[in-house]
Amino acid sequence: MTSADTSPSADGARHEPLTTAQLAERAGVSMATVSKVVNGRAEVAAETREIVEELIRRHGYRRQKKAGEPAPMLEVVFHELAGPYPVEIVKGAQQIAGEHGLAVAVTQLQGRHTPGLGWVEGVLARRPTAVITVFSALTDAQASQLRSRRIPFVHLDPTEEPPPECPSVGASNWSGGMSATRHLLQLGHRRVAVVAGPPYALASRARLDGYRAAMDIGGAPVDETLVRVAGFRVEDGIAATRELLRLPEPPTAVFACNDGAALGVYRAAAEAGLRVPRDLSVVGFDDLFPSNWLTPPLTTVRQPLAAMAASAAAMAVALARGDDLDQKRVELSTELVVRDSTAPPRGAAD
Amino acid sequence: MTSADTSPSADGARHEPLTTAQLAERAGVSMATVSKVVNGRAEVAAETREIVEELIRRHGYRRQKKAGEPAPMLEVVFHELAGPYPVEIVKGAQQIAGEHGLAVAVTQLQGRHTPGLGWVEGVLARRPTAVITVFSALTDAQASQLRSRRIPFVHLDPTEEPPPECPSVGASNWSGGMSATRHLLQLGHRRVAVVAGPPYALASRARLDGYRAAMDIGGAPVDETLVRVAGFRVEDGIAATRELLRLPEPPTAVFACNDGAALGVYRAAAEAGLRVPRDLSVVGFDDLFPSNWLTPPLTTVRQPLAAMAASAAAMAVALARGDDLDQKRVELSTELVVRDSTAPPRGAAD
Repeated sequence: MTSADTSPSADGARHEPLTTAQLAERAGVSMATVSKVVNGRAEVAAETREIVEELIRRHGYRRQKKAGEPAPMLEVVFHELAGPYPVEIVKGAQQIAGEHGLAVAVTQLQGRHTPGLGWVEGVLARRPTAVITVFSALTDAQASQLRSRRIPFVHLDPTEEPPPECPSVGASNWSGGMSATRHLLQLGHRRVAVVAGPPYALASRARLDGYRAAMDIGGAPVDETLVRVAGFRVEDGIAATRELLRLPEPPTAVFACNDGAALGVYRAAAEAGLRVPRDLSVVGFDDLFPSNWLTPPLTTVRQPLAAMAASAAAMAVALARGDDLDQKRVELSTELVVRDSTAPPRGAAD
Repeated sequence: MTSADTSPSADGARHEPLTTAQLAERAGVSMATVSKVVNGRAEVAAETREIVEELIRRHGYRRQKKAGEPAPMLEVVFHELAGPYPVEIVKGAQQIAGEHGLAVAVTQLQGRHTPGLGWVEGVLARRPTAVITVFSALTDAQASQLRSRRIPFVHLDPTEEPPPECPSVGASNWSGGMSATRHLLQLGHRRVAVVAGPPYALASRARLDGYRAAMDIGGAPVDETLVRVAGFRVEDGIAATRELLRLPEPPTAVFACNDGAALGVYRAAAEAGLRVPRDLSVVGFDDLFPSNWLTPPLTTVRQPLAAMAASAAAMAVALARGDDLDQKRVELSTELVVRDSTAPPRGAAD
């Protein structure tokens, strides 16, 4: 054998690669054996494997694909790839996708919350088995295009109320907002501020409404100067907290509607010379890295993002198979995780 | 038209879906027009689009695929999906993949640094256009299997020295370790500790060697009790710093070899009643979220992960096209970002 024989770029690349049947014939083995080798399975004699591998190295291998089959992948589309939020979701989606032999493809919309023309073109070209849209919404036309190509989709943590026929997975945001606020009230706080998320997102509204409900039930009338509609970025938390701390009667506790904004509360408190929780209690929402590792560790409402993504993936796979869903709307529960960023207000402690 | 006619599940799903040619014939338009509609392009009259969409809704659509074509995706394999590190890499890979019409598929190895049998089986079944392995290594057999299927691969932030024929992208870890340590020496520190990463990773060794070089050049002999071989997790940083702070003569500054471990240094310092940077200066490595938002903001060595991933993706795409690479080993430069976690040692400041 010359060296040219064994180098795919020098020789094999110019010829048509071999099919399973051709490989089986040349190697003198069954097509099933070739199939085991090309799929990397273990139960083939080493010598046989070497013969088939060598043929593939020399000539290449051409897999027979059935026309019209969807690509074996579950596409997860994010409005933006930033921070630790996407990682939990990919992890959860992958757990289920892997069980069904699907890869997880990740796409992003560069911060837009409705996928633009470019994204739909891409999906139609890729033809994934199913799509999960994360913290975003499809236009009616986009939903219709996906439906007509039989590409099922599930909304995860939707920004808007999805139409009744669209499956979706969310978290109990309202209850989470309630439990965060109730925790602060139970510690003795009365001037509890809220740094709310972006108003276009359902999750923001639900968390804020949960805050209002807890205040009402707790007999602490909401002072509207303590309600700040901000956003989910650290910068939003900083700006809102600076304003709150300049009030004639500043809050003794802040419920920040996500962990990113809570980081901003920590920063603004430090700037003002206040210590958490001695001078200001803080509760976040999400329980994402590194909330547990902050100084002090953040009390927060845990949102089970990986489990939510796993649910959405299971629903998407079921739809792709043509199964009916038991339930089109799934809401997983949130849980208050008490750490060291909350304490009774100073007056009460002194 | 009856309602059964328009419902894909009641009618169309039982028949063979239509090809582009069949759709063109039934709609009385050209195949090019059908192709524009199915690919979601804009330049088709709304009425024509509606006719084609309606046919697809009723009968389904069967795309013609060429047999033996690789799947249009770039597979990025992580040893583990955790923290903000994977997000930067997916973002960078996607930027390049998108330009070439490729989806980014994300797989993980559940914390193993050498892909196991299951992963190779998956790759051979998925047949991605190319593979990027992140912070992991392939066995010789795995590399050979990918090569024989003409699936090119590039190592990103490799844990081991890749064989000379394997393309790889890394960062200037040694220089980064140097500049972090030199910064602390220039502030007047002499007792500079290092919390090093896991010893199996090249990056850890390079950063530690950079520390040693800077200490040597700066005329500050290394006290081996200040060198802690730990790991990249927050817990590793906490454990190592607790030990360091219990020494008879504790350090006045710590170089933590990643931002996660630096978070651990912050925590252990707070536990011991020390303030950063007044009592202890800290430098990290990576500049990942939320280093900029910690209290105090972390001085760290920026590793351009998104740019590294973009380079690896460009190399992978070039290899998939059959192009030669100008350079098989790419090393992008790191940069010291000075924030508020470093200051002169107390003796010097008082």
